[in-house]
Amino acid sequence: MYNRLTKLLGIRYPIIQAGMVWNSGWKLASAVSNSGGLGLIGSGSMNPEILQEHIVKCQKATQFPFGVNVPLLYSKIEQQMDVIIQNNVPIVFTSAGNPSIWTDTLKQKGIIVAHVVSSVKFAQKAQNSGVDIIVAEGFEAGGHNGREETTTMVLIPIVKKAIHIPLIAAGGIGSGSAMLAAMALGAEGVQIGSRFAITHESSSHLKFKHKVVDLMDGDTVLTLKELAPVRLIKNAFYNDVLSAYQKGASKEELARLLGKGRAKLGMFEGDLDQGELEIGQVSAQLDSIKSAWKLMDELVREFNKTFRSLKSM
Amino acid sequence: MYNRLTKLLGIRYPIIQAGMVWNSGWKLASAVSNSGGLGLIGSGSMNPEILQEHIVKCQKATQFPFGVNVPLLYSKIEQQMDVIIQNNVPIVFTSAGNPSIWTDTLKQKGIIVAHVVSSVKFAQKAQNSGVDIIVAEGFEAGGHNGREETTTMVLIPIVKKAIHIPLIAAGGIGSGSAMLAAMALGAEGVQIGSRFAITHESSSHLKFKHKVVDLMDGDTVLTLKELAPVRLIKNAFYNDVLSAYQKGASKEELARLLGKGRAKLGMFEGDLDQGELEIGQVSAQLDSIKSAWKLMDELVREFNKTFRSLKSM
Repeated sequence: MYNRLTKLLGIRYPIIQAGMVWNSGWKLASAVSNSGGLGLIGSGSMNPEILQEHIVKCQKATQFPFGVNVPLLYSKIEQQMDVIIQNNVPIVFTSAGNPSIWTDTLKQKGIIVAHVVSSVKFAQKAQNSGVDIIVAEGFEAGGHNGREETTTMVLIPIVKKAIHIPLIAAGGIGSGSAMLAAMALGAEGVQIGSRFAITHESSSHLKFKHKVVDLMDGDTVLTLKELAPVRLIKNAFYNDVLSAYQKGASKEELARLLGKGRAKLGMFEGDLDQGELEIGQVSAQLDSIKSAWKLMDELVREFNKTFRSLKSM
Repeated sequence: MYNRLTKLLGIRYPIIQAGMVWNSGWKLASAVSNSGGLGLIGSGSMNPEILQEHIVKCQKATQFPFGVNVPLLYSKIEQQMDVIIQNNVPIVFTSAGNPSIWTDTLKQKGIIVAHVVSSVKFAQKAQNSGVDIIVAEGFEAGGHNGREETTTMVLIPIVKKAIHIPLIAAGGIGSGSAMLAAMALGAEGVQIGSRFAITHESSSHLKFKHKVVDLMDGDTVLTLKELAPVRLIKNAFYNDVLSAYQKGASKEELARLLGKGRAKLGMFEGDLDQGELEIGQVSAQLDSIKSAWKLMDELVREFNKTFRSLKSM
């Protein structure tokens, strides 16, 4: 599976582990990169000092390429980018913001830039801003998400048609079979979040991982669209959000209800009731916690097994 | 592409044309069956006399198997089923209701029964009620839809794992590539609606077909969840729905706003402003109106082309 994406990123398999707040530190990122994929440190839950520490540890733990995911709306974005540039991180995935502001700066330093989008319009804008790679993420994805609600099955072919640079599919991909499906739709690689979030190397709380294993279809929801749309588990906190909606809460009231630190409370500290538990719909398919290298091995085996089972018409 | 689904249905290609109100009468159903797929007459917009007429005309127009789609909540359901049984329709697709009520009756008459579901739970219930085939339909599908919002990419693998009878994927499938993706996810066939809705043989208004061709991603929405969730085009009528929601409208007020006959007004009579225009997200991929036989030919060619382009890892 050698293609222009694996060549550009210097990886063996076109599998990217999504950068996820409170889940993907240096342990997960280095484990994935050491297994032939691309590991991403999720900087959205790190202050610049912590990010620096994770980058340095990741560099010691792997000789292979890894990257950092940066939500562009992050308040300390300039310091984050300084840390990334000064520590010679080779690859940056940006999301949740305007790619035209940072892409030039990063590319002048020789950094490969990917940008996450949820629509054709944003894919074209990102390509025009000079990014090297587009990640198109469907409605089913966990965490922060677009407002258009376009699913991966529909989004990948239309983004593929609209751009000429490499395309990574994200959202709803939890197996080698789904990876093959994404490639059939036109993707050149996949970004997988939820399934990596429950590996041993993920830094989220074990209670959160077990909760994810127990989820069925319909147990997550895309909500808080007035603030920043986010897919999370329907728990006690979500019930409070629902009550607030039913009472006609304003955007300000919703922001107050969300407060600060709920994602940390839920995913990192393991408060399954009051925390914000971000995960994708694909959680309904997940049934065990394992190591990242075993997961990578499974993805490749599943992909090849499904590939061999397909027939022409 | 011979598998247990094509064998059971007696068709050449595992492509089912969805039964769609105001779109799929005998002309479309017979054209699809004559092209090697399975055509379905959508009985949801027909009274029993009209349904009888369409069945008889379809029988004259094709020697191949075709079916009828029956929304189980339809008010004249007993008369519809009588017409279907008395006219020896070989295949029935049921949706929007409890499959345990009609499945036995239909099967005793030798009719093959498929049931449309949107979740694992409903798939298992349908299998337990004795249906022969499950159609699992994702959030991106047009028209009436489930409340769980699970997308096709996520839904197909979990339904596949939960049942042992043949599985058809629906929702977001608008090309041979997406058909291949659905097969990779575990489906044994696909049901395609939107792309058949804009064929020459579809009975919807030409204005509606042109409108669908012009749609971009984000132009449809799943709404009216308090009544029966439906995916439709964001038009003037939808703006009225949105205003009603913003004013905190009750279920009764929403029902009054929807009124009766809006789907006919929009899709059959071509009122693009005040009509209810049901279509899937995949409309964003569609760019031309063509005949059903040409579409069938394209689907097979696209499938095989994409199949040949895939590589193992």
